[in-house]
Formats: sequence, structure tokens, C-alpha cells
Amino acid sequence: MSTKARRPRAFVLTVGDELLLGDRADTNAPWIAAFLSAAGFAVEGVATVGDDTGRIGEALSWALKRVRAGVVIMTGGLGPTTDDVSREAVAEWLGVPLLEDPAIRAGLEAHFRARGFDRLPVTNLRLTQVPAGAEVLPNGSGTAPGLLVPLPARRKGDAGVLVMLPGVPTEMKALMRDEVAPRLRAHFGDPVDPVPSRILRTAGIPESALAEQLEPLVRGTPGILVQYRPSWDGVELRVSAAAGAPALDQFLADADGVLRPWTYGGEGASLASAVLSRLATLGWTLGVAESCTGGLLGARLTAVPGSSATFLGGVISYANEVKTSMLGVPAVTLQAEGAVSEPVARSMAEGAARAAEASVGVAITGVAGPGGGSPHRPVGTVWFGLVSPATGTVAERVQFPGGRDEIRHRAAQHALRLIYQAAEKGLNDEGSGSIGSGS
Amino acid sequence: MSTKARRPRAFVLTVGDELLLGDRADTNAPWIAAFLSAAGFAVEGVATVGDDTGRIGEALSWALKRVRAGVVIMTGGLGPTTDDVSREAVAEWLGVPLLEDPAIRAGLEAHFRARGFDRLPVTNLRLTQVPAGAEVLPNGSGTAPGLLVPLPARRKGDAGVLVMLPGVPTEMKALMRDEVAPRLRAHFGDPVDPVPSRILRTAGIPESALAEQLEPLVRGTPGILVQYRPSWDGVELRVSAAAGAPALDQFLADADGVLRPWTYGGEGASLASAVLSRLATLGWTLGVAESCTGGLLGARLTAVPGSSATFLGGVISYANEVKTSMLGVPAVTLQAEGAVSEPVARSMAEGAARAAEASVGVAITGVAGPGGGSPHRPVGTVWFGLVSPATGTVAERVQFPGGRDEIRHRAAQHALRLIYQAAEKGLNDEGSGSIGSGS
Repeated sequence: MSTKARRPRAFVLTVGDELLLGDRADTNAPWIAAFLSAAGFAVEGVATVGDDTGRIGEALSWALKRVRAGVVIMTGGLGPTTDDVSREAVAEWLGVPLLEDPAIRAGLEAHFRARGFDRLPVTNLRLTQVPAGAEVLPNGSGTAPGLLVPLPARRKGDAGVLVMLPGVPTEMKALMRDEVAPRLRAHFGDPVDPVPSRILRTAGIPESALAEQLEPLVRGTPGILVQYRPSWDGVELRVSAAAGAPALDQFLADADGVLRPWTYGGEGASLASAVLSRLATLGWTLGVAESCTGGLLGARLTAVPGSSATFLGGVISYANEVKTSMLGVPAVTLQAEGAVSEPVARSMAEGAARAAEASVGVAITGVAGPGGGSPHRPVGTVWFGLVSPATGTVAERVQFPGGRDEIRHRAAQHALRLIYQAAEKGLNDEGSGSIGSGS
Repeated sequence: MSTKARRPRAFVLTVGDELLLGDRADTNAPWIAAFLSAAGFAVEGVATVGDDTGRIGEALSWALKRVRAGVVIMTGGLGPTTDDVSREAVAEWLGVPLLEDPAIRAGLEAHFRARGFDRLPVTNLRLTQVPAGAEVLPNGSGTAPGLLVPLPARRKGDAGVLVMLPGVPTEMKALMRDEVAPRLRAHFGDPVDPVPSRILRTAGIPESALAEQLEPLVRGTPGILVQYRPSWDGVELRVSAAAGAPALDQFLADADGVLRPWTYGGEGASLASAVLSRLATLGWTLGVAESCTGGLLGARLTAVPGSSATFLGGVISYANEVKTSMLGVPAVTLQAEGAVSEPVARSMAEGAARAAEASVGVAITGVAGPGGGSPHRPVGTVWFGLVSPATGTVAERVQFPGGRDEIRHRAAQHALRLIYQAAEKGLNDEGSGSIGSGS
């Protein structure tokens, strides 16, 4: 809080009729807000208006009041068609004329010549217009450049800036990184340190249990704020320390003793990636057998670049016949116990390791719903099987909440956690010399 | 456009410091905007501010200016802790006192008694306070109720309303549906018909080619607006008709002749679901062999409830050894041609059908990157194989743009499109009597 006053202020304005229909979330505003926060700005507000010069002007007036000598980032309404009116709106709001920029015109002419047009298609002429006094920010991946204009001074000495960017996310992001960020640094100086924070990702423990573990520690450390963000992947923690970086480090060191069984990484960490790197350290390879997840676990693992060194493949055994023919699950077991059962999960895991010739096999078989539940095995019942050098063959039953998507997603995540735990055991056993590395 | 003036206006205000950090998108604002648009309101703007009475007041003043006699929906800042100041902000902005509501208090006391507290935890006292004149909207799933207060009249006769809702999405949505919607209908009358629109989903054709096909038709039909929304799944079209529903139907009938090869459904349609229903009609079953997609195609198919009737399973053949052992791809072919090649794709597809004992087999083998590319087979090169009763064994090479995630996603979608086309051919052949239904 106390650092907030010293930080330059920022406001984000997104423009577009389509944003007010609400059928798509506006991804530009949160991205820009995060970018500016990380760059040391205090984001004061976000607004969205339609393609209308009057409403854009109203929003700009409020934004100026909020940021005064800071920065307003505005996206959208810079395209070539007549419903894109952001240039006109800004010129009108600033009380300056729109002028043709010869460099933009030359660039557009070259662009269209390269595509076989001998003259500029007339709709593109709008792209050459800029409010008087604007600096042009070249757009490497699109035809509409960004623009930077000084904000009007509300008090003597104010020197804020308004940045106008195209609404196409890839173009907006490239412009923010390549053109806007260096100018903001030049204009506002090096960023004031934001409140230091760290992300920790956990799996396998519910939010309430996590809070119970952590809260005594939080209460004992002044200035520490912990936010819990539960998702189908587990709970992500954001720990921030108003008291500064040393307090944060101390807290994280203390928390590690409590959290270690469940944490697998920091910001952006993927459990699949953590699993693969542990397996690689052990020299273990992995095969999967998926029934109710239908390939989701394999998809998670192979989303990690380089996964082919460790993940060999597996079987999507959706039909019972495939469980028998490709994984060697005895038909009589399927008949007697049902496909969602401990012996089938164990047999599938062993079949996965055998079929892929892998050191670790993992299997998922469950009732993802909405149909197929029974009093004995309600929707959400999932059996997991695992075979590894550290554990032998083991199985576990879990009852997941939610609908089909949630059950499947959580089941794939849980399977990753089972492999992770087996690999942790393997690494510990190896450290203590009781088991050599598999292969 | 002409209908817009007659519609009551709406504004959405979301409140919360965390929303300005930008690390999570605000999902409430677009949901409410879509809800209000569907209910016949013209959404005039969206704003987000932190938990600060002054800034909330500024935003409310702008919102009031925008909607005048319409509705402002505000979410967040209604929790029990002292950083939740929305009640104070609204009371201050309206110039009315905060009063304790006895019914809220009684409800909270009952709530906590049921949980073993004999007295109300004191932090919850804030939840009982409401701006004078507010109507309380009971919240069935949380402790903070919604509130409805009249907006100040800017001109004589104005009778707008301000609705305050908790920021927890499930609570907000339940309150909007159960409590707010009926009150808005009572207050503003039955919704004016919104501009009729329809969503069409296409796959396998780029945005520019689609626009080239459609634009002559669009120019020939006044009042038709087509928006193109490209994604990794293909291009979604939103067609709206200011001229009304008959004009929309006429345009869609005309467009069908042009779009038919690429459309597979309307709003929310999934290509996987369309594929499965066509296969089911034909009595065909499906097996897959996935290399670079690693299970993504299976995951897409099994995301559809009831897919087990048609999708039998398959092989994730990430390692070459698995391609040989489980799909029967000759090791000598892999050696001579490489894993990303036409003969391997064909052999994998046939192996998938054989292994799953399915009538259709589809195979994906490609270079998803970032490593593994070569001048001959750059990153993004994917070979597809397909065997079906209607096509025999066929193969196709596609070069996809983008990074690893995009290549894998587009490849799975392309495989679905190949199956879809084979099934369409099967249905046509069947219609013409040249091929009986497989099984």
C-alpha cells in the first residue's frame, strides 16, 4: 500500500462494440494490466466502450482523471473500416486535427505492392491518419501502427502519455513489448519495485486443508498475504510480502516444511513437466493406459517439449475389447469385477508398461458420466493403477466431484501426481542406495 | 442500429483490487454483458476499479451518465472483510446512510448456529448493512446477499436501478438468473427483440478464403453483418441481421450453398461430436493412432458424452518401437522413410483400425517442435493417414503454422475433419445405394 503512491499510474481502455456483447472475454485488458503491474505501474482502472467517439471521449476523460501524469493504454478501433473510430475519437478529445502520416502511407503502399496491388486500396487510407503530435509505433505484424500522444496536462508539469494499439492480441503484445515498454521506461524511469510475490503450485490437497496448514504461519509473519486459487489442476498460491523480499524468502523457507508434499513448482509450472524431469533423472520410461480420460493424460505429457525422451506411448482402451486385446486384461476379470475396479486398474497399468516396454505404467479407468453411474460406482469414481520400480503394482480409488470435463481433467492430474510420488520415492530410494536406477 | 435506441441501457462495473493485477481475466463482466444483451439491454460500457470508495463513486457517476434510466450491475466488494467497501461506496455516492437489515442478520445468525457458533462472528456484522432504501436479494449459496437500489434521477421521471452482487461467479450467476432477471423484466418490461443473429462453425478453410466466398453475398443482402472469428479450431462466423429474422433466414439459406463443405454446426457445436454422430448413423466404429498429438485426438473424441458407442480406442505411438509393436508399422519403413512420412501414416491408420477392430482408423504423425525439424520436414509438418469403408486407405500432408500447442491442436482438428469428410462420403454413397452401411 505504501509503495503504491510512488508508482506511476496506469489505465487500460479497450474499445469495440463486439466486447460489449460479452460472448467473448476481453483478453487484452488483463494482459495489459498484468504487463503494466509487472513494469511497476499502479493500474487504476479498466474500461470498455463501444466504437463511438463520444463514449471513447468520456472514458478517456475519466482515465485522465485517474492517471493524471501516468499512462493510458487503449486498444482497438484502429482498423481500416469506418466502424473503427479511435483515431477520430482521440483527435476530437484532444482538440487536434487528424493528419496524414507520409511514412505510414509509404509503408502501406510497399505492403500492397508486394501483394500485387499497383495502388493502395482506398479503405486503407484511414490507416495513414494520425492525431497531430502523435508518434508512430511501427507494427511488424499488421497494417495498423500503434500511436503515442501526450496526455493533456491537468496540472502544470503533468506529462502523461496515451498509447493507442490495435486490438489484435498478437500485434498488441508485440507492440507493447517492442515499442511501448522502452518508451515507458524512458519516460517514467526504471520501475519502482512492485510488492514482491511468488507463485507456488500444489496438487492433491484441497484449498481448505492447505489454508489450515498455512494460516498459523501466515499469522506469525506480519505483512504476508496468501491468496488461494483453486482449479481443476490443484490450488495455486500467490504469496506476497508488503514487508519486502527478505520477509518473503523467510516465509517461503518456513512454508516449505509444511507444503513440500504438495508443491511441484512455481509460476507456470506444469505437473507433467515436473513428472517427466524426475523420470528422466531416474532413467525411467513411461507408458499409459487410458479409459475414461481417453488420451488426456498422454496429451498432457506430450504437451511438454522433449517428452519423447521419457514418454513412450500407450493405449487408449476405451472399449473393453481393447483392454483385453492390447493390454492383456483378462476378459473374465472385466466380466466379474467390471471395468472400473481395482484388479482391472492394476492389470491395465501392468499392460501399459508391457505394451510400451516402459519402466513405469499408469492406468486410469473410471465413470466420467453423465451416464454409466451406479450406486456402487457413482459418476466420478475413478480407479488408478500404477507399476514402477519403486512401488511395484499399486492401485487407488478416488471419487471426483463435478461434471464430465472436470472429472476427466482431475483424473489425468491425479495420475500425474501418482507418477510424481513414485518418482520421488525412487529418487529417495536411490539417494539411500537401496535401489539402483531403472532403465 | 435503429433498434438500439429503443432498448434500455446497461452498464457493468466490477470491483476488486485483484482484478487490476491482471493475472486473472475477469469472467463476471463478459458473462453479465452477454446475459444483459440476451435480455434485450444495450450494454453501454464495462469498467473495473479497485476496492476504493472514491473510485467506485467515480465509476458509478460515469455509469449513471451512460445508462440514465437503465440498469447498472455491480459485482464484488460485498464480502465481510474491511477491504470490501462496495456497501460504503454506494451509500456515500447516493448520500444515504448504511442501516442494519434485521432479516439479513437473522439469516446469518441461523447460518452460523447451524455450524455450531452460538454468536455471530463479529466480522460478519458488515454483511448485515445495506444502503437505506435497498431491496435485499437473497443469496441461496453464500452469506452475502445481493442488493437493489434506485439510481438517482438525472432527469425528471428517470427510474434506473443499481444492482450489487457478490463477486463469486456461481453466486453472482444464480442471483442474476433467480432474483435480478425477474425484477428487470418487471421494471423494464419484456425485452425488445435483440438483433437476430446466428453462429456458424467452419473448419478447414482460412478466414480470408471464407470472406472471399461470402462477401459477394453479404454485399447483395442489405443489413447483414458477418463477423469472422478465427481460432485453432477453424473460423466461427457470427451472422446478424439488423433487417430482422426473415432476412437472416434468407441469407443463411443462400450462404449454405457456398459454406456447406466447411460448416459442421452452430453455436457451441463441436467437430468431434458431429463426427461421432455421423459415424454412429453409418454404424462405423473408430480407432486412432497418435504420435505428435499424443492423445489429444482421443481426448477430443471422448470429451463427447456417449462416445464409447463409436470410439473404441487406439494407440499413443510416441516412440517408434510402439509404432512397430502395437501398430505393425514395419521397422524398415520407419528406417527408410522416417516416422513423419506417407507410408508410416498409412500403415499407422491401418494398424489403428486393426488394433481397435474398428471400421475406421485415423493416424497422425508429425513434427510439433520446437525441436526435430529438418529442411525436408520443418516444424509443423504433419502426415495424416485414414482408412474407412468409403475411402480405402488415404494419406495427406499438411504444414501447420504456430508453436507446439497450436500445431498439435490444429492437427487433432484436421484429423477430425478427415474423418468427417469420409463419413459424409459414406452417407452420400449409402444414399446413392453404392455402399451398404459398414459395421
